Amino acid sequence: MGWCRFFCPFLEGKTLCRSDFPPLKGRLDGDDTMTEIYLDNSATTRVDPQASACALQLMEEEYGNPSSLHRKGFAAQLRLDKAREQLAAVLGVTGGEILFTGSGSEGNNLAIQGTALVQKRKKGSMVVNAAEHSSVLETMKALEGDGWEIRRIAPLADGRPDTEALAAAVDGTTRLVTVGAVNSETGAMAEIAALSEECKLRNPQALLHVDGVQAFARMPLRPKAMGIDLLTFSGHKINAPKGVGGLYVRKGVRLLPVLYGGGQEKGLRPGTENVPSCCAMALAAQLLWKDQEAQWKKWVALRQAFLEEIEKIPGVCINSPLSGAPYIVNFSVVGVRSETMIHFLEEKGIYLSSGSACSRGAKSHVLAAMGLDDRRIDSALRVSMGKFTTGEELAAAARAIGEGAATLARRR
Amino acid sequence: MGWCRFFCPFLEGKTLCRSDFPPLKGRLDGDDTMTEIYLDNSATTRVDPQASACALQLMEEEYGNPSSLHRKGFAAQLRLDKAREQLAAVLGVTGGEILFTGSGSEGNNLAIQGTALVQKRKKGSMVVNAAEHSSVLETMKALEGDGWEIRRIAPLADGRPDTEALAAAVDGTTRLVTVGAVNSETGAMAEIAALSEECKLRNPQALLHVDGVQAFARMPLRPKAMGIDLLTFSGHKINAPKGVGGLYVRKGVRLLPVLYGGGQEKGLRPGTENVPSCCAMALAAQLLWKDQEAQWKKWVALRQAFLEEIEKIPGVCINSPLSGAPYIVNFSVVGVRSETMIHFLEEKGIYLSSGSACSRGAKSHVLAAMGLDDRRIDSALRVSMGKFTTGEELAAAARAIGEGAATLARRR
Repeated sequence: MGWCRFFCPFLEGKTLCRSDFPPLKGRLDGDDTMTEIYLDNSATTRVDPQASACALQLMEEEYGNPSSLHRKGFAAQLRLDKAREQLAAVLGVTGGEILFTGSGSEGNNLAIQGTALVQKRKKGSMVVNAAEHSSVLETMKALEGDGWEIRRIAPLADGRPDTEALAAAVDGTTRLVTVGAVNSETGAMAEIAALSEECKLRNPQALLHVDGVQAFARMPLRPKAMGIDLLTFSGHKINAPKGVGGLYVRKGVRLLPVLYGGGQEKGLRPGTENVPSCCAMALAAQLLWKDQEAQWKKWVALRQAFLEEIEKIPGVCINSPLSGAPYIVNFSVVGVRSETMIHFLEEKGIYLSSGSACSRGAKSHVLAAMGLDDRRIDSALRVSMGKFTTGEELAAAARAIGEGAATLARRR
Repeated sequence: MGWCRFFCPFLEGKTLCRSDFPPLKGRLDGDDTMTEIYLDNSATTRVDPQASACALQLMEEEYGNPSSLHRKGFAAQLRLDKAREQLAAVLGVTGGEILFTGSGSEGNNLAIQGTALVQKRKKGSMVVNAAEHSSVLETMKALEGDGWEIRRIAPLADGRPDTEALAAAVDGTTRLVTVGAVNSETGAMAEIAALSEECKLRNPQALLHVDGVQAFARMPLRPKAMGIDLLTFSGHKINAPKGVGGLYVRKGVRLLPVLYGGGQEKGLRPGTENVPSCCAMALAAQLLWKDQEAQWKKWVALRQAFLEEIEKIPGVCINSPLSGAPYIVNFSVVGVRSETMIHFLEEKGIYLSSGSACSRGAKSHVLAAMGLDDRRIDSALRVSMGKFTTGEELAAAARAIGEGAATLARRR
């Protein structure tokens, strides 16, 4: 009998199909199989079978190079154009405003470095929320070494970007303001429209870049209505393959390339276009987006039930703001180090993280920027849900976290 | 009855399976189906079903983020390490010397820009073969704008890089010499070991970068024996997915990153590693490499037979050197414009190109650098074979090219 059935016997086969719970080789409680509970969807997601089927067809059949002059190349070009339109539709923009990249990190680099390169000789300032992803912060650090003035603004105590302070840092020298729509560690959401309005009042030339990797296709991001000039997104956070991402570049915004080559993507990103992954990403985005409202409500309910369970556990404090994206819950089990809990849970086939995968267990700069104390930072855990996440999985995880808190706290 | 059977009735079903000739929707000679003859493998290749199956498994099952601290992340990390070892084995180097990138173009950028960034304050010179890929030449142009001295050396009249002239251009200011192992348009091969030796005699500090995209896994590239410091390769030219490539960086060679982020790939290439495509590329490379000698002999024989056929066609001149890689044959049907012939052939389901897909029909800088006259450049065609290419396909193509030459020349 599978482990998950122990917690939800009423599911009996019907919904516990392979597409919900791919099997993991391992043993638990004397069972021959262990069901996986994957709650690390902000690190990466399982590819939707429809998206992978799309990629597969383009790898094995319509495999032309979009730049080839013959029909097989043209067919690939058409597929790519269609993918661009599908992604544009999710954002309410035009296909011509979507560029494909190799990852969210590359998109952030292209947006920030590409803006800086336009003003190479006349450097100015950039304003950044201090709790952003490393691909934003490290790029800013490199520009700083190059002569740019980088103004880092600490988030509010609840993790949200400080709209007022960010806007107040904008002046006539500012070329770019950058903020994440949803913080990858806490789920804290930016007030994008208000930020844009206040920034543009102070300097209409300053561009607003939004790292939308943790938000795209899961919440409404409308660049036109919200005053976004540049917006990054990524495939592997939305059940599309790894190795593909995109950047919305508002018509009229000028960037220069960071990488040089064959003129693909309007000369801004060289290399043969990754048609299979671009199309798979567009399909995955469409699939998420068409159910966005229902999905959001589901996540809100799942979060509510999960919070009720884990708040019963001694030592638990919630680090995520309730106003944040419902699919990310950051909390600390004070007294149990994050890594210890992660390893305790993985033995039960439950996967969650201590923060951003990209920081690989280093002390969270996000929680530090929020001003949390070290005991809370060292015991922080992040549960991040995807479209496949179920209430049963979360209930099982909450129970296991409770067991862990009791067992591991005793061992201290 | 399929069109290909018309030319090779003896094949009757047995070898004309789907894996050899995926069907294309279309009509020819009153038939309901048209068999595709894909001879544009230097532009991109069909993904080997074993490689795509590998990618699919990693997308849907072992989909962890290699940077995640839990077991599912660790499993992905192990797969990535294995892929690195497999690729290293093809080159006779160590896994630690292989970096993953998002494309061959990105690899070339990282090698060249990454070298330049190390010497940002004390710029010097770089030496480049003038017939290289745009991702090399455009990067050089950008560095030139930045204060580097770029020494472009024309190839020999037969298309081969001019070893002596390249080496002679090296002096104490030279940081990098770059040459393609196999030219993408003509198949002309560089004398890498000799070039390395002569360059290092003149300046032991000068690095040798080889663009190996059109050679990797199809011919022996042994960085240690050949004196290569940096070597670029790409997945989609060797029956692996698009959107992935790699760079060999000899231990001890220092690069700086062009893109910034979470410290992946030794801090030289940010973004969640594209585990499915990296592993698929490693498998595809292994599959090609294990049959390398037999495959090479097959290509030599195929080229010989193909040349014998097309040389009978009035107006045909061969642009590829016979010493070049046997899987690339560049020739001109003087009097018939390349695009006209390409469209004539695509009507018959035969796909070949006028040169590099990345140049999208612009006048070939490679043939121009070889000193060919405009009539020959404007009528140039490239047949590029892959591991699935058969003699029957080439015979059919040669016959169709003959028909094209007769028909289209008459129309002029």
